[in-house]
Amino acid sequence: MTQHLTTFLEIAPQSDFSIHNLPYGIFSETAQGDKRVGVAIGDWVIDLAALETLGLLPNCKTQCFNQSSLNKFIETGKKNWHYIRQTLQDLLSADNPTLRDHPELRQKVLFKQNTVTLHLPVQISGYTDFYSSKEHATNVGTMFRDPKNALLPNWSELPVGYNGRASSVVVSGKEIVRPSGQIKLPHEERPLFSATRKLDFELETAFIVGKTTALGEPIAIEDAWNHIFGMVLLNDWSARDIQQWEYVPLGPFNAKTFASSISPWVVTMQALEPFKVKGPQQLPEPLDYLKEHTPNSFDIHLSVELQSSQSQQSEVICQTNFKYMYWSMAQQLTHHTISGCNVQVGDLMGSGTISGPTENSYGSLLELTWNTTKPLTLSNGEKRGFLEDGDRVVMKGYAEKGAIRVGFGQVTNTILPAKQFSFKQHKELCDETV
Amino acid sequence: MTQHLTTFLEIAPQSDFSIHNLPYGIFSETAQGDKRVGVAIGDWVIDLAALETLGLLPNCKTQCFNQSSLNKFIETGKKNWHYIRQTLQDLLSADNPTLRDHPELRQKVLFKQNTVTLHLPVQISGYTDFYSSKEHATNVGTMFRDPKNALLPNWSELPVGYNGRASSVVVSGKEIVRPSGQIKLPHEERPLFSATRKLDFELETAFIVGKTTALGEPIAIEDAWNHIFGMVLLNDWSARDIQQWEYVPLGPFNAKTFASSISPWVVTMQALEPFKVKGPQQLPEPLDYLKEHTPNSFDIHLSVELQSSQSQQSEVICQTNFKYMYWSMAQQLTHHTISGCNVQVGDLMGSGTISGPTENSYGSLLELTWNTTKPLTLSNGEKRGFLEDGDRVVMKGYAEKGAIRVGFGQVTNTILPAKQFSFKQHKELCDETV
Repeated sequence: MTQHLTTFLEIAPQSDFSIHNLPYGIFSETAQGDKRVGVAIGDWVIDLAALETLGLLPNCKTQCFNQSSLNKFIETGKKNWHYIRQTLQDLLSADNPTLRDHPELRQKVLFKQNTVTLHLPVQISGYTDFYSSKEHATNVGTMFRDPKNALLPNWSELPVGYNGRASSVVVSGKEIVRPSGQIKLPHEERPLFSATRKLDFELETAFIVGKTTALGEPIAIEDAWNHIFGMVLLNDWSARDIQQWEYVPLGPFNAKTFASSISPWVVTMQALEPFKVKGPQQLPEPLDYLKEHTPNSFDIHLSVELQSSQSQQSEVICQTNFKYMYWSMAQQLTHHTISGCNVQVGDLMGSGTISGPTENSYGSLLELTWNTTKPLTLSNGEKRGFLEDGDRVVMKGYAEKGAIRVGFGQVTNTILPAKQFSFKQHKELCDETV
Repeated sequence: MTQHLTTFLEIAPQSDFSIHNLPYGIFSETAQGDKRVGVAIGDWVIDLAALETLGLLPNCKTQCFNQSSLNKFIETGKKNWHYIRQTLQDLLSADNPTLRDHPELRQKVLFKQNTVTLHLPVQISGYTDFYSSKEHATNVGTMFRDPKNALLPNWSELPVGYNGRASSVVVSGKEIVRPSGQIKLPHEERPLFSATRKLDFELETAFIVGKTTALGEPIAIEDAWNHIFGMVLLNDWSARDIQQWEYVPLGPFNAKTFASSISPWVVTMQALEPFKVKGPQQLPEPLDYLKEHTPNSFDIHLSVELQSSQSQQSEVICQTNFKYMYWSMAQQLTHHTISGCNVQVGDLMGSGTISGPTENSYGSLLELTWNTTKPLTLSNGEKRGFLEDGDRVVMKGYAEKGAIRVGFGQVTNTILPAKQFSFKQHKELCDETV
């Protein structure tokens, strides 16, 4: 698998989308045009619906590419994912004349990425967010609870997670409106209604479930990796002041449900296989149902860049790595289903904020600025505790080994000002006109 | 609206499904047969797909009844819901000869309920569960936190809620497998893996969202009732021991995601209109965005019956009323969207456990037995702290005013024993055979 492959296409060595990657997404030629499945290669998208029409996907289960989501393709199963990948690597290889020597064919199947529109890659029935970075959980526990007992007792025994809101998951590029809600200031007796003053990002990855399971049928830990299709970058936007007031005792709600954004390209687990590494030692040793015996983490470099509306350039404010995560994706999925909960193809499972051991490796502004007590100074002199209107947040990720590079592209969003509210005390009931 | 209507069909006076009700569901003539939209009337289901084919639904938006869920019908909008309701009341009226005098037509559109299979009525994209009974929140806070400060400070300011798991919502009749997971016993240092020993029901109602909204567009409180299609009974199954260990700091997860069951018939808000009453006084007065100026609760009698596998009959163990709920459905929906969160047709929004002021009006075994310290004694002498395998739980609900009765039918489920697990330390990785 780590054998180096070459393609006839000209691809920059630092491109996230080498022939070793081949991530899946949904694209259309125009914003409102027909959606279909594409694969990123260098600066291009290769159109799988067109390849199918041209008969260039033999031995593959097809009729799943003229679709507005990857779900039908994912449902065809792991064997077919592998067939398609092999077929594409062969078609794009430097040795294969099929596309290489036929520009009229290439024109039908290859589009420049900067000319197409990318959409949400999967239809997400369920979104679950975990909390699996020990450094992040420790930082939050230190700030908001008790520095001496920052980690709660259950944290080391199970991958803590909660149900998120699937309807508000959006794709990179969508503008994020600053949310409003209830905020309780320490010196006030009652909460006030306000736009959040503590708008934050959370640097996460997420995996996409590859197989639908039945209610009452847990996924065994030995089988869990077979149930994961691929990974994306996830920015789990958070309003810290709304969260702090609302989250007891049932967890975060409005502080998170206003938006979560993901990168448009789903990087497959097969493309990530060469970058598998051992995760941190787990002590205490997990209960049997969570025990793994083979490497279960990935060496993926992650970063966050911030660009103020007053600045011409974005600057890196966080550099971290997926390999710091304490609980693995297999452990998360097995734990999720151990009670009998069913999962569905396209379900999105967030890692939780990914923080590393050093102060510049924290995956949220809450941690980077230690809840505004250590504000960031940007290169133009501006200070940041939390996000300002007009700020642009860019998350990137890639894995690299020798000459082989597999990247995620990015998830990028800009903050818009809060909606203006005017509450009318005796507004007429709205009559619906259908 | 409270004018009494009569039908040519013979309907028992105590039937939940009077001509004033006309709740919607999804049925098929055989378990695997074609699903379509039906309406319950007395002991019958009237087939809306058949009525449409026969041209008996003039002036209505149709082509939404040959469906496996109500979503397409709900999407046609409130005006159409009203047209269909009026058309059905007219067709079924004692004065209308169309069906009354044509048995061959009746045979095509009316089926006995006990001969058909009822399915999940809506495709649920999002499931949210609130926590809006003051009595329930106070009871739980008293047992698990501090009796002197049982209600947390945010509870009286906003309808506390959390995201549930939509994939595991099932319809009445589905058997519920006792879930397993991590349980931490007080005298043990570490948790153990076990079937839950504290399996509980939660008596709730839930409303079904009637309109899809856009991200970033909150629903104003004055408009919120227009966004609600109807209501069902909801049993939000809970594993109390799993819950107590896992729920900090992000809320309940595996303790709830193994199953939530709903009644098959969706009672419309129009059918419930005559039973509108004022809810409890809200002190402190809610913030402007949550203020309502008209009656916002409903007088709906609710009960729970329990039947042991050793007993021939079920017995009532809880009697309560929806009118005790502190936060209204409109307030829940407005609060849900105030941050900009979008909602979708078919979303299920649970009330939270509905407990009343008296000890026999508590909506969970946790409260009825005060966490096993006051076990229930059944009529055959058996004791119950929490649910045993083989127990059957029946929830019922109805509203009544003079001769007009509008009922919910029931949500009934039986508990099956836990799945047996055997953890293999070196099991081979399962190869998928697609």
